[in-house]
Amino acid sequence: MRFASLVIDRRPAPVVIADDLQRFVEVRHLLPGFDGDMIDLIAQVPLPDQQFAAAVQRTDRWQAIGTHELLAPLEVRRNIFCVGKNYHEHAREFSQSGFDTSAQQGELAPPAPVVFTKPASTVVAHRATVKAFEHLTSQLDYEVELAVVIGKPGRGISKADALQHVWGYTIVNDFTARDLQQKHRQWFIGKSLDTFCPMGPYLVSAHGIDSANLNVRCWINDELRQNANTKDLIFDIPTIIETLSAGMTLLPGDVIATGTPAGVGIGFKPPRFLKKGDVMKLEIDHLGSLVNTIG
Amino acid sequence: MRFASLVIDRRPAPVVIADDLQRFVEVRHLLPGFDGDMIDLIAQVPLPDQQFAAAVQRTDRWQAIGTHELLAPLEVRRNIFCVGKNYHEHAREFSQSGFDTSAQQGELAPPAPVVFTKPASTVVAHRATVKAFEHLTSQLDYEVELAVVIGKPGRGISKADALQHVWGYTIVNDFTARDLQQKHRQWFIGKSLDTFCPMGPYLVSAHGIDSANLNVRCWINDELRQNANTKDLIFDIPTIIETLSAGMTLLPGDVIATGTPAGVGIGFKPPRFLKKGDVMKLEIDHLGSLVNTIG
Repeated sequence: MRFASLVIDRRPAPVVIADDLQRFVEVRHLLPGFDGDMIDLIAQVPLPDQQFAAAVQRTDRWQAIGTHELLAPLEVRRNIFCVGKNYHEHAREFSQSGFDTSAQQGELAPPAPVVFTKPASTVVAHRATVKAFEHLTSQLDYEVELAVVIGKPGRGISKADALQHVWGYTIVNDFTARDLQQKHRQWFIGKSLDTFCPMGPYLVSAHGIDSANLNVRCWINDELRQNANTKDLIFDIPTIIETLSAGMTLLPGDVIATGTPAGVGIGFKPPRFLKKGDVMKLEIDHLGSLVNTIG
Repeated sequence: MRFASLVIDRRPAPVVIADDLQRFVEVRHLLPGFDGDMIDLIAQVPLPDQQFAAAVQRTDRWQAIGTHELLAPLEVRRNIFCVGKNYHEHAREFSQSGFDTSAQQGELAPPAPVVFTKPASTVVAHRATVKAFEHLTSQLDYEVELAVVIGKPGRGISKADALQHVWGYTIVNDFTARDLQQKHRQWFIGKSLDTFCPMGPYLVSAHGIDSANLNVRCWINDELRQNANTKDLIFDIPTIIETLSAGMTLLPGDVIATGTPAGVGIGFKPPRFLKKGDVMKLEIDHLGSLVNTIG
């Protein structure tokens, strides 16, 4: 089922989007008494599919999306967890690019998940402008990633149980200023400028999605640059959840970006960085298209 | 002025602590109509000193702290920003320890501030137990740090204006599992286990504090291990604020831990790691003593 956040009566409202992508129904019309945002929904309804499928079947409260503004699907409450270097071919291109200050000499793939964060203030919606910050960076780069949204909270989650903690999936563009990523050693600053995390367009609930077999693609100005499948992840989603939750309690609404495949700008020789006006289109099977322009 | 968060009527309440450290007055008795937490106070009152000094002088609502539970001074709303390797002598001990996966060969001090984050879920109060997580790590280490709390929000803050954005200061123990920090390359996981960020005991407002000249000390079981002064910071507080805010909007209540001086466990040969029962006492001039036990 396809969820989104729309501006309705000047506030963010979680909605279900119809299969035609043209109509929506507000969650408060499906769940009597509900009056929260998407993360409230996630915390309240651990697995939406059975309950919602019936309510969605019954409802006559469909409306046209029309001019309602589409927001990022979640109002993220804490930093997004990001896994770096998590596709073999990308780990290789990044280690060899000279931009990776954390690779050990001769190390192509990391021995364990590499995790950093981006603050919630980086998140922007489908169609929003990503700021170029030309006075701070000349090395803007894109990264399409499958993002996992946690439903059931937990610490010490085993691989075997991990997928029971996943509420759904969305697309994230882990946008990066490579010069800042390199200069500041730890990756946080280069990944955390305002608007550097396009997310969406939808949050698709987990039921029926095989997240270990999704095509992941990114086009820059209509040129296909990244084209991979999540079956090539070095550390799969259960492993990532087990690793992250080993000592840290995961919370409803936490977002984990699972890493980007090969084909980013620094993978080219010479590197191909982005500039104002460039259009990024990110697509993942079942999750839609996330389009943003640099401005 | 010395602020704290106490549990009053089963909820966190910001208070002013008297100079005798035995009594408090609730902020809601000083600021008519106020009914928020410490970050609400920070957002509402950019510089507490003039307004509060007068109200504190006048008030007759002092109470004994007695058995009221002391919480961490802030209910942190987003990840704590942490600066790594920010004292020369510590940068050297860490680069040479073999635990630093981000140092470039032969590099002793970083060329620009190194920033990573810890989630709010790591924060615990003065006297709280820090979990040993013995099934996950055998290399627990302490780090005393001066932490800056942002008042006035902003992006693109210049060094010259930076201190106007500081609401106050507190002490942070950037507690770390060195084996996880090393294994996962980026430092986030090793720094982010639940309870890994003791904070407090107080939040001291900035007026009258010369944050560029504070003694910073840490004792383990009464043995002095770290003993330095903030005048030895590689990147001073205005530089850190200018760097962090260049592309990322800083918000009221943001906490920036400014880095730890030499003397951490991995600085010794062989390293001296912590174990259950060890007591850490962290002190910074004017900010009090932050004591936590490993359990």
